[in-house]
Amino acid sequence: MTAQILDGRAISKEIGEEVAAQVAEFRAQYGFAPTIAVVRAGEDPASVSYARMIQRSFERAEMGFVPHILPETASQGQVLDLVNQLNADASVHGIMVQEPLPRGIDEDAVKAALSPAKDADGVSPINAGRLAQAAPIGRSSTTLNYLVPATPLGGLEILKRSNVEIDGRRAIIVGRSNIVGRPMAFLLMQHHATVSICHSHTRPLGDVTRQADILCAAVGVPRLIKGDMVKPGAVVIDFGVNFVDGKMCGDVDFDEVVEVAGMITPVPGGTGPMTNVMLMRNVLEAAQRQCR
Amino acid sequence: MTAQILDGRAISKEIGEEVAAQVAEFRAQYGFAPTIAVVRAGEDPASVSYARMIQRSFERAEMGFVPHILPETASQGQVLDLVNQLNADASVHGIMVQEPLPRGIDEDAVKAALSPAKDADGVSPINAGRLAQAAPIGRSSTTLNYLVPATPLGGLEILKRSNVEIDGRRAIIVGRSNIVGRPMAFLLMQHHATVSICHSHTRPLGDVTRQADILCAAVGVPRLIKGDMVKPGAVVIDFGVNFVDGKMCGDVDFDEVVEVAGMITPVPGGTGPMTNVMLMRNVLEAAQRQCR
Repeated sequence: MTAQILDGRAISKEIGEEVAAQVAEFRAQYGFAPTIAVVRAGEDPASVSYARMIQRSFERAEMGFVPHILPETASQGQVLDLVNQLNADASVHGIMVQEPLPRGIDEDAVKAALSPAKDADGVSPINAGRLAQAAPIGRSSTTLNYLVPATPLGGLEILKRSNVEIDGRRAIIVGRSNIVGRPMAFLLMQHHATVSICHSHTRPLGDVTRQADILCAAVGVPRLIKGDMVKPGAVVIDFGVNFVDGKMCGDVDFDEVVEVAGMITPVPGGTGPMTNVMLMRNVLEAAQRQCR
Repeated sequence: MTAQILDGRAISKEIGEEVAAQVAEFRAQYGFAPTIAVVRAGEDPASVSYARMIQRSFERAEMGFVPHILPETASQGQVLDLVNQLNADASVHGIMVQEPLPRGIDEDAVKAALSPAKDADGVSPINAGRLAQAAPIGRSSTTLNYLVPATPLGGLEILKRSNVEIDGRRAIIVGRSNIVGRPMAFLLMQHHATVSICHSHTRPLGDVTRQADILCAAVGVPRLIKGDMVKPGAVVIDFGVNFVDGKMCGDVDFDEVVEVAGMITPVPGGTGPMTNVMLMRNVLEAAQRQCR
């Protein structure tokens, strides 16, 4: 029996429509659109194409998109000045600084300079800390609002909208990046999963991954997760975006794992399309909080 | 064969002497002592006795201890005003606000108000976020300095000074509190363990704990961890402080587990004595950074 394919395109379309409807309400109420400012220094091709994709999605939902393109020779001071100016600009509700920044610029200092209320992709240490300290779902919490990186948020939303039980299940995450693995671990723990994080020092990796009811791969190694590393019936969320011989593939060996798993996200068409709509939802929610 | 007992009193004495020597150097260089301000509102007996213990340790090491005792009727505004005043006071290098605060005071707001540079027990969301985002040991990092809660830091120090291999080992943490379980997970992951966090929704708990090379219990349930929940030879770190029939005991059933584990911390005399010296070391390091 082959796994059910979790269709990220369909789910992201659904969320995109929900966001667009709320944006229309927001515009009707306030007379302006929830707006993201996207900062880039130089013309890194992946950044240029990602910015274009963000612009298309935001404009389709009638959200505001304001690009700020600094020269590749920009100094750290120039980037920080721009971030501070955007922090103070009431017409901007979300800010994203694209990486990589030019050599010599301290990316951590730039992330730390982002106003946590406008940090559209949840990269600032303050938002990371609020997520890290957040109470489990169902417990009262006085924690301040926070923004979570869009990619793991998209993975969580796929699980929720596919009615995957998270509470009490074993979730194994392969990869400990700040932008996917670590926040995904917190999101799943917040929903009462027993969470483990694997990484390059986990050996043999399969001994751990085979324990997963929910297996998330976010490590950037093409087709690392083989069929014999997955428990039959597991739910597999593949965050990998790799290119092999010009063809996109995930961190999961799809052809093998689809025969073992119970549910699986394909690459492309799984977690990828979710990131964009979750970024839109983050900016919408940030705007709602700022204008309340 | 019974487990080797990890003697927290002996290790904490060693660290206390190291700290005292560095404090003497600091005083010789600057003419004043690294100083903690401890804030309390009301006369909660556990807080009073903990403050007294901190005072004794700090004074023994010739560090400064400044108590600030507000009435039990103190408002949130009064507590925040005091925190802001201490944040700005150059003669104070570390601040600890004791819990519980009186009803109606938002403890999260108080933690968020602490200057991250002076947050002696690493409770602010900014310090939690810097730890959550910190690079693994051995990788270059531009992350800002941060302070980590003293209790998990003490557990880590016991492991290090007992020559326990962490890299590549499976570490299982029982308990997901912000003050022990979560930061302990990050510290161990930073040292390249494969880390899992268990909690009240993990069932059966023993299935997970039996996989631990390093098992940390920080859940506040007396003698929850039984002998058959521990892998033979595992290293067991017990953060529990419980009282049963007036007698202190940990989260680990010591009498059973000592027959199974390879190493184990007793309660009392294990992680408990470490917390104090790690708090001292935190304040010393904070003072060194502030005066540099």
